Amino acid sequence: MDAEIITIGDELTSGHRINSNATEIARRLNDLGLRVKFVTSVGDNTEEMAEAFHLALRRVKVVIATGGLGPTDDDLTKKVIVKVFKRNLVFHDDILERIKERSRQRGIDFPAINQNQALLPQGATFFPNRHGSAVGICLSEHGKIFISLPGVPREMMQIMDDEVIPYLAKLNLGQAIKVVTLRTTGIVESRMAELITPDMPADQVVSLAYLPSYRGLSMRITARGTDRDEVDAAAHKLVQFLEKKAGRYIFGRNDDSLEEVVGQLLIDNDKTVSVAESCTGGQLGMILTSVAGSSQYFVGGLQAYSNDVKVSQLKVSSQTLEDSGAVSEPCAQQMAVGARELFKTDYAVSITGIAGPEGGSDEKPVGTTYIGLASAHTTNARLFNLGTDRNVVRTRACYAALEMLRREILDIN
Amino acid sequence: MDAEIITIGDELTSGHRINSNATEIARRLNDLGLRVKFVTSVGDNTEEMAEAFHLALRRVKVVIATGGLGPTDDDLTKKVIVKVFKRNLVFHDDILERIKERSRQRGIDFPAINQNQALLPQGATFFPNRHGSAVGICLSEHGKIFISLPGVPREMMQIMDDEVIPYLAKLNLGQAIKVVTLRTTGIVESRMAELITPDMPADQVVSLAYLPSYRGLSMRITARGTDRDEVDAAAHKLVQFLEKKAGRYIFGRNDDSLEEVVGQLLIDNDKTVSVAESCTGGQLGMILTSVAGSSQYFVGGLQAYSNDVKVSQLKVSSQTLEDSGAVSEPCAQQMAVGARELFKTDYAVSITGIAGPEGGSDEKPVGTTYIGLASAHTTNARLFNLGTDRNVVRTRACYAALEMLRREILDIN
Repeated sequence: MDAEIITIGDELTSGHRINSNATEIARRLNDLGLRVKFVTSVGDNTEEMAEAFHLALRRVKVVIATGGLGPTDDDLTKKVIVKVFKRNLVFHDDILERIKERSRQRGIDFPAINQNQALLPQGATFFPNRHGSAVGICLSEHGKIFISLPGVPREMMQIMDDEVIPYLAKLNLGQAIKVVTLRTTGIVESRMAELITPDMPADQVVSLAYLPSYRGLSMRITARGTDRDEVDAAAHKLVQFLEKKAGRYIFGRNDDSLEEVVGQLLIDNDKTVSVAESCTGGQLGMILTSVAGSSQYFVGGLQAYSNDVKVSQLKVSSQTLEDSGAVSEPCAQQMAVGARELFKTDYAVSITGIAGPEGGSDEKPVGTTYIGLASAHTTNARLFNLGTDRNVVRTRACYAALEMLRREILDIN
Repeated sequence: MDAEIITIGDELTSGHRINSNATEIARRLNDLGLRVKFVTSVGDNTEEMAEAFHLALRRVKVVIATGGLGPTDDDLTKKVIVKVFKRNLVFHDDILERIKERSRQRGIDFPAINQNQALLPQGATFFPNRHGSAVGICLSEHGKIFISLPGVPREMMQIMDDEVIPYLAKLNLGQAIKVVTLRTTGIVESRMAELITPDMPADQVVSLAYLPSYRGLSMRITARGTDRDEVDAAAHKLVQFLEKKAGRYIFGRNDDSLEEVVGQLLIDNDKTVSVAESCTGGQLGMILTSVAGSSQYFVGGLQAYSNDVKVSQLKVSSQTLEDSGAVSEPCAQQMAVGARELFKTDYAVSITGIAGPEGGSDEKPVGTTYIGLASAHTTNARLFNLGTDRNVVRTRACYAALEMLRREILDIN
């Protein structure tokens, strides 16, 4: 079964908002076995919205639209649905009661403008919204399904997960699909291609996609067909091949993140970690603690941005700063050792680099970054050249630090 | 002049990658005065790519496609261009030399597969790529312009900024446009609408859009027309009205971020700041130091994740932790005071909260967050309820902390 996602809002076509909703909806539909053929974004313009709705209803079976369901005048989706489906708007007392009850529970006044939210196109069913006033709208006509959801990501996702996915799952989807993503780090796309393509088994059922990012290269294996067993076997065969060829670069699968994998390794080995961050200003600690339950292994860290803080809190030697500078191998090592002692952890990781745009030199250009690691057995630091964009350098530095920690725990060179 | 953006890749239609490229391109076209009518994403599928190319060439004047220009077999864009435009591929020696030279400069072997990158559709001109091997491709036919760019964001943006925008700017655009975005914090969309809609001046030329995010609500004013002066005056009039009605919530304009505005305030007042972060694990320091030049005012911080670190490093009283817990007003105050003393700064900001998903209670549900602030004159802490999603709670906490700091510096209640 094929699908199209339509995301609505001037902020999307003008580039003032990143389209995370399309990604969230696409992944959920994909996981359910639907194939999203097109994602279309249109501005808050009734003509272009109507053109997008008509086109999608012609070329796919399931259309999911988001945005334009708010109570204010720039929200046009219902007006366009009324036009495209040739239906009237009907007032629903039960919806009004629901959204009034939400206001009461939150102890806030009911904004009069929210009464609009109780109007639905004739014949539509609705999906309740636990986090907001705009309900989801579902219309079915001539074998096509049209679903309209609010644009606020949290509301959209709650309705997708609790209502839309179960609703679509009940329909007969008729296609088997198997998707496996292998997550790698420490290797670029072209090298990976040269490593694996020569002997890669050919198979009509299965395809491979490379997904590079600042956090590492992912490889997505997608098998599709009508026979469940054949599809699963084809995916399994390619995964096995890739694990054999590129296993040392693979740290996890699917939704695994490097921070989760490292966190689980620390838990499994009953170890703790602390950080000392200069150019990343706290990002490594933020990433480590983005994992729920990270208090089991993350103790704390020092955002040692100024040299004074490096010396006074982490006991970096002033002589080192004078001789080698803050962005140097000995400074990175001393920062890691200092953090390990200050926070009394098994491991400590440090980052000191030139994130730019200022501060680079011929000897140490922007992107020059030293990452240090201290444990009971070893102290070392490695040099990385991480590019020229400030936030890219910082993000790459954090993931390089996590990878150094992973290799240290697993004793991989 | 109108435009369509086509982003290509299975990772987009399957929801495995967020479509930041579309946003970046749209903003640049919008700033140039082009109106992006549609953004379309398609998978790596020649039929659907061809359908999207044909449709876009029919309905707009400028088409910008990204993705599918890599050297590997899953990169199909050139094949589809050849089909849609009915042209052959021609080998360009000069392009091969350029990309070989790039490899030499970076001291890496030239991957043989990259030879494909020197093939271009007949009659196409190309835009050089400073960061990668895939050049941008430009075709012009029947008054339409079709531009194909690589999908790697950094490469795409460099070619857009250095090549495509100057190229499009030379064409006659014929429309005047004025866009102003007012950035606010501390007020939600429906309240803002109730505050400003009653007396808002009506004007055909100008429109207002609300752009809520976890970092605050933005309001975008867009004026379009044929007369430059009329367009500018209409935008100016609405901006003045909004500043009068909602000025206390407005912290900046257009690309201003709260962290930049706060940083500039610290510079202007010759003040320094430090942080003490529990549930955010370093995110506030990361945000403050995302601004180039932040070393002028950001000294350092403590990622005080465990209670032991709060007590040993920030001198939070053990009695306070026992009586009130780590997520409490006195703990937030003591954390701020401790950081201010440790780092010897004018201001210190602290965050302690329950980010979830675990750790909530009836008395202190997930989202309960105290933000503390210490200065030479005052110590205080405020309670916030920031939702139920771990990363949303953390991001909102950081921006609430920045807003508390802004109000303290400006002496706004």
